[in-house]
Amino acid sequence: MEENQNPDEDNQEILQNLDETGQTEELVEMFEELPTPDVVEFLEDKSIDEIISYLNDVDAEDQGRIFSDFSIDLQVELCRTLDRRKIATIFRHMYSDIRADLYQELTKDEQIGLLPYLDKKVREDVIILSAYPPETAGGIMNTDFATVFEGMSVAQAMAKIRHDAPSKDMVIYIYVIDDVMVMKGFVTLKDLVLADPNAKVSDLLNEFFVHAEVNEDRESVAQKIEKYDLAAIPVLNSLNQLVGIVGHDDAIQVMQAEQTEDLERLAGVMPSEEGEDYMQTSTLRHFRKRVVWLVGLAAMGIISGIIINEYQGVLEHFIILAMYMPMMASTGGNTGTQAATVIIRALSLGHITDDEWIKIVFKEIRISAMLSICVALLTYFKIVFLSFHGLLPEGFTMSFVGLTISLAIAIQVVTSAVIGAGLPLIVRRLGGDPAVVASPAISTIVDITGLLIYFSVASALLGVA
Amino acid sequence: MEENQNPDEDNQEILQNLDETGQTEELVEMFEELPTPDVVEFLEDKSIDEIISYLNDVDAEDQGRIFSDFSIDLQVELCRTLDRRKIATIFRHMYSDIRADLYQELTKDEQIGLLPYLDKKVREDVIILSAYPPETAGGIMNTDFATVFEGMSVAQAMAKIRHDAPSKDMVIYIYVIDDVMVMKGFVTLKDLVLADPNAKVSDLLNEFFVHAEVNEDRESVAQKIEKYDLAAIPVLNSLNQLVGIVGHDDAIQVMQAEQTEDLERLAGVMPSEEGEDYMQTSTLRHFRKRVVWLVGLAAMGIISGIIINEYQGVLEHFIILAMYMPMMASTGGNTGTQAATVIIRALSLGHITDDEWIKIVFKEIRISAMLSICVALLTYFKIVFLSFHGLLPEGFTMSFVGLTISLAIAIQVVTSAVIGAGLPLIVRRLGGDPAVVASPAISTIVDITGLLIYFSVASALLGVA
Repeated sequence: MEENQNPDEDNQEILQNLDETGQTEELVEMFEELPTPDVVEFLEDKSIDEIISYLNDVDAEDQGRIFSDFSIDLQVELCRTLDRRKIATIFRHMYSDIRADLYQELTKDEQIGLLPYLDKKVREDVIILSAYPPETAGGIMNTDFATVFEGMSVAQAMAKIRHDAPSKDMVIYIYVIDDVMVMKGFVTLKDLVLADPNAKVSDLLNEFFVHAEVNEDRESVAQKIEKYDLAAIPVLNSLNQLVGIVGHDDAIQVMQAEQTEDLERLAGVMPSEEGEDYMQTSTLRHFRKRVVWLVGLAAMGIISGIIINEYQGVLEHFIILAMYMPMMASTGGNTGTQAATVIIRALSLGHITDDEWIKIVFKEIRISAMLSICVALLTYFKIVFLSFHGLLPEGFTMSFVGLTISLAIAIQVVTSAVIGAGLPLIVRRLGGDPAVVASPAISTIVDITGLLIYFSVASALLGVA
Repeated sequence: MEENQNPDEDNQEILQNLDETGQTEELVEMFEELPTPDVVEFLEDKSIDEIISYLNDVDAEDQGRIFSDFSIDLQVELCRTLDRRKIATIFRHMYSDIRADLYQELTKDEQIGLLPYLDKKVREDVIILSAYPPETAGGIMNTDFATVFEGMSVAQAMAKIRHDAPSKDMVIYIYVIDDVMVMKGFVTLKDLVLADPNAKVSDLLNEFFVHAEVNEDRESVAQKIEKYDLAAIPVLNSLNQLVGIVGHDDAIQVMQAEQTEDLERLAGVMPSEEGEDYMQTSTLRHFRKRVVWLVGLAAMGIISGIIINEYQGVLEHFIILAMYMPMMASTGGNTGTQAATVIIRALSLGHITDDEWIKIVFKEIRISAMLSICVALLTYFKIVFLSFHGLLPEGFTMSFVGLTISLAIAIQVVTSAVIGAGLPLIVRRLGGDPAVVASPAISTIVDITGLLIYFSVASALLGVA
């Protein structure tokens, strides 16, 4: 096993060892060699003063790279500790999108105090990137891209990239623009490397390219990156000028954020904000994120109470009905949640659209009909064989009561599947996010419909009210 | 607005127009110009014969590229229609990971029939890639990477890449290996382009690199790609030889698949297989995916029935208790689901670990204590103000009964939150996937604990049993 094939835990060990043995020079050298997240993991355990002293030991470019990977809280704290000239140097070498996010975290006074120290280019970049709402392509894009002109030869293009590129982290696509920044297409660095130096950029140009609009929703941008397997997508303004790019790493973050949102909505928890962390979030905020749905649904539970009150005559005669009420409610909730989850996921993966709602509802009816037979059979045998005979009024057999309850539960399963599948489709059709039809909401709704079904069937077949 | 800045819908229009006006030559030219997914979307609507005739019109490299993007079903169908010589040509130009997946979809007879027609390199590649389980790094990796040797000059390295690379889609990282394929590190294409042609590759070498083991779980591979913002990760075998790479696009697919699995597990639906589609999945299979949990939980519901039977004396005296049973159950289910979802997501994002369980449980107790006060107050006022006085036996006031039920519900909220948060932590500690503690399972468990709490509190305070 070679020393240089180390997973990240070993990278931490390398840093710890050098630190403990006081080999500061070698340690700082490692800051330049190791993957940034490993260096950041090591540094974030140190005190602010230590972090600053380490940062001073690495060159400006590495300062910007490492600083960009710190948590936003640490970035802000460092900004408040360092003098403005130093911050300006770090700003010059940070990733443009992270720099803009940091700038927005500063107070108005801090922003105004810092601006005169920034290079003109950095200042403009920060202000422009801060202007877009965070949910849009503009809000997540960066400006770390390389451009060439259509009329250039390959050799000229390579020379321009050599001149422009050192500050950019990764160069994969080279964007081809005209003299007013209107995007004409792209070439890959590989294309340029493989091409005859005397060839024209226009000969290599991919002019049919996928792009995002600057105001486009970030989820749609992430979906394009995924669909077209892009390493980065160019972002254009309404004049078709290239204003930024969104990388595949940003797409992954957007997708994770959206997935967390979906999951939380399904569970009736208010969506987390960007980067919200369980442990760091206060108890009060956790409480606030859950209380609305919980109390709201509990309040709706009053309807169940009213229905039960309405049918108390039936319940008094057939106390056995009370015994199967919880199973009725939970089976309905489970069926509805299953159907809703499957539909919401299929909608968000683009496997189905709300236009197909008739087909989907019929499919759910078929599926739930099969499920209802199983659940009804189980219920029937449970009732007949466990037979709490003492609970029956005279003149009724356990098998007839079993049939009644089983029939009610079979109807409940089909109804719940249709409600669970139908609600997200309706919400999508109205233009909303289907995941807002939280699983607790569906459970509460099918509790109510379930009780109505249960007591209607019971009073019809058993002849009491 | 320029003609060449078209989103993908317009790309479809371009293809449709050329098709309808019979401009086949221009159409085929567009197959080479437009992004592959758009071409595939157009072709997949055509008949098999038309698809074959179009494929024959484009050059071999484009055939492989377009074919690789077809759905696996269409790929298999085409393999069964085309003659083996033609398939071998397409295989030569397909993406290596997709080619191996396709090969595994063929029957043993088809595989044996095809092998002699494949180039030696392709044959070996297909067999090796097919050997790894689909859940591992080996199962999702591809072999479309470029390599250079440490001792080479930059000029020599560039020459080797020019020679090797045309068949590879995207070249970002160049992997540096020794003469037995042991990975020494990597350089980026940008580094090479920017470097002095006489410099040594070893001077540019990044020797501390992140890698995956060939048997590593694919989810862990995807997490590394995300953590380190990699465009691709090298996959090494136990001898540290470079055997493949996994790209960022594969990481996105893995994360989506795992996310779907989590969501489905949470809803008590058996996980989908790779690429399973709602509409294409048969009713019977949908049924099978849902029936196990549904019937299993309904069977467990018998426990609720037994508890209610046990306490029928209480119920007969206080029919009002039956009215608040559904609210008790659903509030418990909702609280438990909220807590479980938040914990499962935090575990899967790596925000918390199961080691911190004591802290987490105490945090959930604090959160749920606040929630329980709100729910209990609501319940109390609901009972007192809606006051179905007729339901009370003599000697009991509505406010005392309200207090009893509210107290029971407050205890239920805290218990449910602890159970909902605790179960995923226990499952993770035992080495399982926390998402298997499905939300229906939690609802069913807290139904049972809830009934026990409800009737214990009621019989203790109201003095009946």
